[in-house]
Amino acid sequence: MQTKIGFIGLGIMGRPMALNLRQAGYPLQVHARHSESMAPLVAAGAIACASPAEVARQVDILFTLVADTADVEQVILGDQGVLAGARPGLVVVDMSTISPAATRVLALRLGKRGVEMLDAPVSGGEIGAIQGSLSIMVGGEAAVFARVKPLFEILGRNIVHIGGHGAGQVCKSCNQIAISHTLAGVGEALLLARASGVDPAKVRAALLGGSANSRVLEIHGQRMIDRDFNPGFKARLHQKDLRLVLEAAHELGLALPGTALVAQYLNALLGRGLGELDSSAIYQVQEAASGLAPGEDS
Amino acid sequence: MQTKIGFIGLGIMGRPMALNLRQAGYPLQVHARHSESMAPLVAAGAIACASPAEVARQVDILFTLVADTADVEQVILGDQGVLAGARPGLVVVDMSTISPAATRVLALRLGKRGVEMLDAPVSGGEIGAIQGSLSIMVGGEAAVFARVKPLFEILGRNIVHIGGHGAGQVCKSCNQIAISHTLAGVGEALLLARASGVDPAKVRAALLGGSANSRVLEIHGQRMIDRDFNPGFKARLHQKDLRLVLEAAHELGLALPGTALVAQYLNALLGRGLGELDSSAIYQVQEAASGLAPGEDS
Repeated sequence: MQTKIGFIGLGIMGRPMALNLRQAGYPLQVHARHSESMAPLVAAGAIACASPAEVARQVDILFTLVADTADVEQVILGDQGVLAGARPGLVVVDMSTISPAATRVLALRLGKRGVEMLDAPVSGGEIGAIQGSLSIMVGGEAAVFARVKPLFEILGRNIVHIGGHGAGQVCKSCNQIAISHTLAGVGEALLLARASGVDPAKVRAALLGGSANSRVLEIHGQRMIDRDFNPGFKARLHQKDLRLVLEAAHELGLALPGTALVAQYLNALLGRGLGELDSSAIYQVQEAASGLAPGEDS
Repeated sequence: MQTKIGFIGLGIMGRPMALNLRQAGYPLQVHARHSESMAPLVAAGAIACASPAEVARQVDILFTLVADTADVEQVILGDQGVLAGARPGLVVVDMSTISPAATRVLALRLGKRGVEMLDAPVSGGEIGAIQGSLSIMVGGEAAVFARVKPLFEILGRNIVHIGGHGAGQVCKSCNQIAISHTLAGVGEALLLARASGVDPAKVRAALLGGSANSRVLEIHGQRMIDRDFNPGFKARLHQKDLRLVLEAAHELGLALPGTALVAQYLNALLGRGLGELDSSAIYQVQEAASGLAPGEDS
């Protein structure tokens, strides 16, 4: 019998991902807080459910993709939550980006009811979700990972089983740390070029050919030069992810001064009411600090 | 008549670069402070000269590749320096990494004597120098750049004319800024993985497939995981380059807090007597800060 799939959370990322699973031919039950989010899925043959519990009762593998730790806890543990409808043997795959520590607690609570859990946050943005080219970082048991892997392969390209429960979330934190620093570095490099009267576009072209090459220089460097900060990945979500990183660092007693610096830039960006912009818009905070107003490029 | 080439400064980078020019068939005059540095070039058919002035008297295009601003000034302006032997029409191509401001002054002084100058710092390290695959960032006049370009094409692959005098040096500064941040970000990411009990090698593999992809993650991330800090690019040279960046920022009134942070890591690394290691060894400073001793990886 064919695997029955559930998908809870149909935002910018969840909607195209659920659609890709449906278009691969799987029976699909969906739930979202706003019923209009379900319409395009229903049009594609999915069945709308009134609650997470109703989804859980009918499926074998249930994906969740919501905004933050508290949202996942609500979807799984709340009234009419997943746990209220779950049968033993259900697999819950949380693709949200949330706290690794909270993930371990959830896995434990689900495990006590015979429900398996994977944490599987993604990288690659809306385009990756639409194209099915996401990076997927997975935590949980190897046997459960193996069972879900064919579905991951519909959603993404670079799929890595990192380790036990929470390891996928830790890896996503590492991802956000690395991206943050590279964004700040590309920003400072382009600012030095501008302040020195040198064409930032030529600098970007030269740097792409050497050790400074990065996906961020290629994509976000171009956005900074074009001053096109349409998301992409929203600054308020990047801010939330770095909050998770810095909470973990606080708990672990770990010094991450570079990440803390970029988190401050994101705070400042949100303080300016610009949280809906792409997170590469921290460039606006960097240039404002030195009074380099937009359009002063040589 | 074939272009006669001079090369002054035959260190780790200069020696293989001069050799590549010689092996392309050009008559070559060389000079180095230590005469033994000239031996492999002489064996390949180059002529050893007693001073920069002696090189300058005999060539059409003269490359310099020495350690720092003061060294370039000494080679060009000093007793028996390039200027003492230069004829009008000579082109001086400084491939050292030095101050953009000092470069502009040198270009002016050479120009008054009818000598052209390009600043053309490189990225790509010893391997790039040997393989002729360097990135070359060039400042100076377009006509002079066009004249030297066939020689640059022997030395490198990504050759970009950035702008006027000093623009090559500004671009190199931008390059070092971007690399610095990315190194620090990869270091913080791998530390969070280790502190969380997650395999850093799996994190690196996952991150390479997404937006966190960078040359630094690929190469230096592996060095951090292997704890193999053989250079590569020496920490003491990276420290010098960031000193140039921060001097420029000071003069320009530009805030580069991320670069300043990495410069402090490099200071600490040199303070520990580790300046000859690859600059990715700042990872040792990052882990020491949180008491994560070597070999505690999960």
